[in-house]
Amino acid sequence: MNQRDLSIAEWPLSERARKLTSSAIREILKVTEQPDVISFAGGLPSPATFPTQRIAEAAQRVLTDNPTASLQYSATEGYLPLREWVARRYSTGDVTIRPSQVLITTGSQQALDLLGKTLIDPGSKVLVETPTYLGALQSFSLYEPKYVQVPTDEAGLVPEGLTPELVDDARLLYAQPNFQNPTGRRLPLARREALAALAREGAFPVIEDDPYGALDYRGTPLPTLLSLAPEHIVHLGTFSKVLAPGLRLGYLIGPETLHFKLVQAKQATDLHTPSFTQRVAYEVIKDGFLDEHIPEIRTLYREQCEAMLAALGTHMPEGVSWNRPEGGMFLWVDLPSQIDSMELLQAAIAEHVAFVPGAPFYANEPRMNTLRLSFVTVPPAKIDEGIARLAALIRARI
Amino acid sequence: MNQRDLSIAEWPLSERARKLTSSAIREILKVTEQPDVISFAGGLPSPATFPTQRIAEAAQRVLTDNPTASLQYSATEGYLPLREWVARRYSTGDVTIRPSQVLITTGSQQALDLLGKTLIDPGSKVLVETPTYLGALQSFSLYEPKYVQVPTDEAGLVPEGLTPELVDDARLLYAQPNFQNPTGRRLPLARREALAALAREGAFPVIEDDPYGALDYRGTPLPTLLSLAPEHIVHLGTFSKVLAPGLRLGYLIGPETLHFKLVQAKQATDLHTPSFTQRVAYEVIKDGFLDEHIPEIRTLYREQCEAMLAALGTHMPEGVSWNRPEGGMFLWVDLPSQIDSMELLQAAIAEHVAFVPGAPFYANEPRMNTLRLSFVTVPPAKIDEGIARLAALIRARI
Repeated sequence: MNQRDLSIAEWPLSERARKLTSSAIREILKVTEQPDVISFAGGLPSPATFPTQRIAEAAQRVLTDNPTASLQYSATEGYLPLREWVARRYSTGDVTIRPSQVLITTGSQQALDLLGKTLIDPGSKVLVETPTYLGALQSFSLYEPKYVQVPTDEAGLVPEGLTPELVDDARLLYAQPNFQNPTGRRLPLARREALAALAREGAFPVIEDDPYGALDYRGTPLPTLLSLAPEHIVHLGTFSKVLAPGLRLGYLIGPETLHFKLVQAKQATDLHTPSFTQRVAYEVIKDGFLDEHIPEIRTLYREQCEAMLAALGTHMPEGVSWNRPEGGMFLWVDLPSQIDSMELLQAAIAEHVAFVPGAPFYANEPRMNTLRLSFVTVPPAKIDEGIARLAALIRARI
Repeated sequence: MNQRDLSIAEWPLSERARKLTSSAIREILKVTEQPDVISFAGGLPSPATFPTQRIAEAAQRVLTDNPTASLQYSATEGYLPLREWVARRYSTGDVTIRPSQVLITTGSQQALDLLGKTLIDPGSKVLVETPTYLGALQSFSLYEPKYVQVPTDEAGLVPEGLTPELVDDARLLYAQPNFQNPTGRRLPLARREALAALAREGAFPVIEDDPYGALDYRGTPLPTLLSLAPEHIVHLGTFSKVLAPGLRLGYLIGPETLHFKLVQAKQATDLHTPSFTQRVAYEVIKDGFLDEHIPEIRTLYREQCEAMLAALGTHMPEGVSWNRPEGGMFLWVDLPSQIDSMELLQAAIAEHVAFVPGAPFYANEPRMNTLRLSFVTVPPAKIDEGIARLAALIRARI
């Protein structure tokens, strides 16, 4: 053997690494970074909502008041005052969340990785919505589960679809009940109650991933699954959509017995989430800032959403349908069945407009005539222009 | 079944999660957090070395100059100027490191997790030093390898011990050639060359974990394995020991072919390391700050090390031996063979002094009469007092 044969390309990779392929979204995002593209593809919150000045002040304060603790190694579980803040925020009249149930994570994405580590063996059955969040599929897939899709309709997951046969032997059910990524759908109250009842009866965890719950345009929240079945739900939250994603701060709320395993897994994964960013975030939010700030984000996103709905109504041809989200960052488009949104994307990029095709959001059996539109980062005039271009491309394919 | 039977304690955990046990170090650190304990147990750098003022100024600058980019989602690979800085710093006359080989990680601990994800299958053979870094054992263990210990002596890993039988079918060799945690040993040049030659010939990666290389008391560094076999080494570095660990910033340098898999694994793990901390660190170091700062850390740690060596020489009875580190944060003590350092720790804690027993640092067949002492955070007068107490306990057991 010569030296070339022994290059790293020949190094033995793990089974899971050999299965890794490049993410469709990732490749798309590269293209849409060009400034002249009107991109409805990104999952980025609007930077207009970042409280930069407050974050700058908070950074100064924590480094002045507690320099050592802000820069030293710290507890794997997270900064205690931040965990207490989360526990208070999720406690209601009926339900008390204990700080010992809260784990601070390096973004919600890390919570998904830790749950994969602690709950999924190769071949484990994992139940997901149809479609579901691509980032969760990416995280869980490293632990090589077998995905089973739960039936959904316009209102989201259909609890009656969770037949004994479907749930038999499942390791977990993963769902985003609020303004789901990618569809923007919100699960109605009766379905939440049915799912919570199933969580109480079932012997597997329901993972309630809730990055968008606060972005409820009318301020009429529905109860979380956590509040309906507090001992049987693992709830994931994040500061990415209400503060700033570049801080990479999320949290997991779950029963203490699971918590213990998750903490050990996190210790092995990154020791702890940065002390500095945790303290900065706590300093920003501790006096009620989010209660003023979140309504501003809601107002902005509602207006953005309305601009997109208006543009879709104006430009889209017969045979194209979409939902009217009541919150969040995304809406979901159904195209006539002969149109493949992957092909449409190629054509769209040539016209300097971008979106995410629906296919990668399906664990199995993708519906090729679907796509996701994000409406939060493009100014309304550009939304109209971008949707007009997209509509012309669709019309040409009908 | 009643509801109790269905509590989360009954939820099916993954095989790897069932094997997780609480870390000995973790439990010990809890005890030693009491302020009246003289603790040689911690692996914490001295907070006297944190450049707080510079970090505070940098935080203001990045939030003033680039608020959106500092707070928005960013590339999985890391902040490009920081990757370029790492590449420049590791390039020598003979060896050019490309930014495309550099991945920014959420602390070095995350690099270990990503390497476990991409290189280790259940049952894979992983070669480690005797003893080795406990944090690496914790990370890799989640991927269920079979550990094989490589023989070591006072100078560290013995390359002649890497027999064809020992290395046959190995997935990787993990080593800390500089001032190893836990022993403080530095691998001599001839052994580095032998290991580099083996890396060039072998079909498995050598992971060179180098958190302490910069903390070389005499400023006489030895070449890294990376510089000796640049296409065949995965090198891990960190800002934890030269800037501040609470930022959780590390980096991995490796061949592009592996890099591609690591980036995908990182995307699934935490999307990216915080944009904010990466930009703050770059702002602090970009103009050569570390070249002034590292010599100050070296001087402090050398003086601390000398204080501990003096105390050991004064107080320890015959039959106890230790090494004289030329850098880093730790030294390694051999006790008479009848003394079990786990039992000694129980007695030591009653006397308000703490250390880490050697056993957890062995992948297999622990030597119970060993212990690790950290000398960087305790003031010299307290070092003398703590070592005197420890010596008395040891003397009582001879």
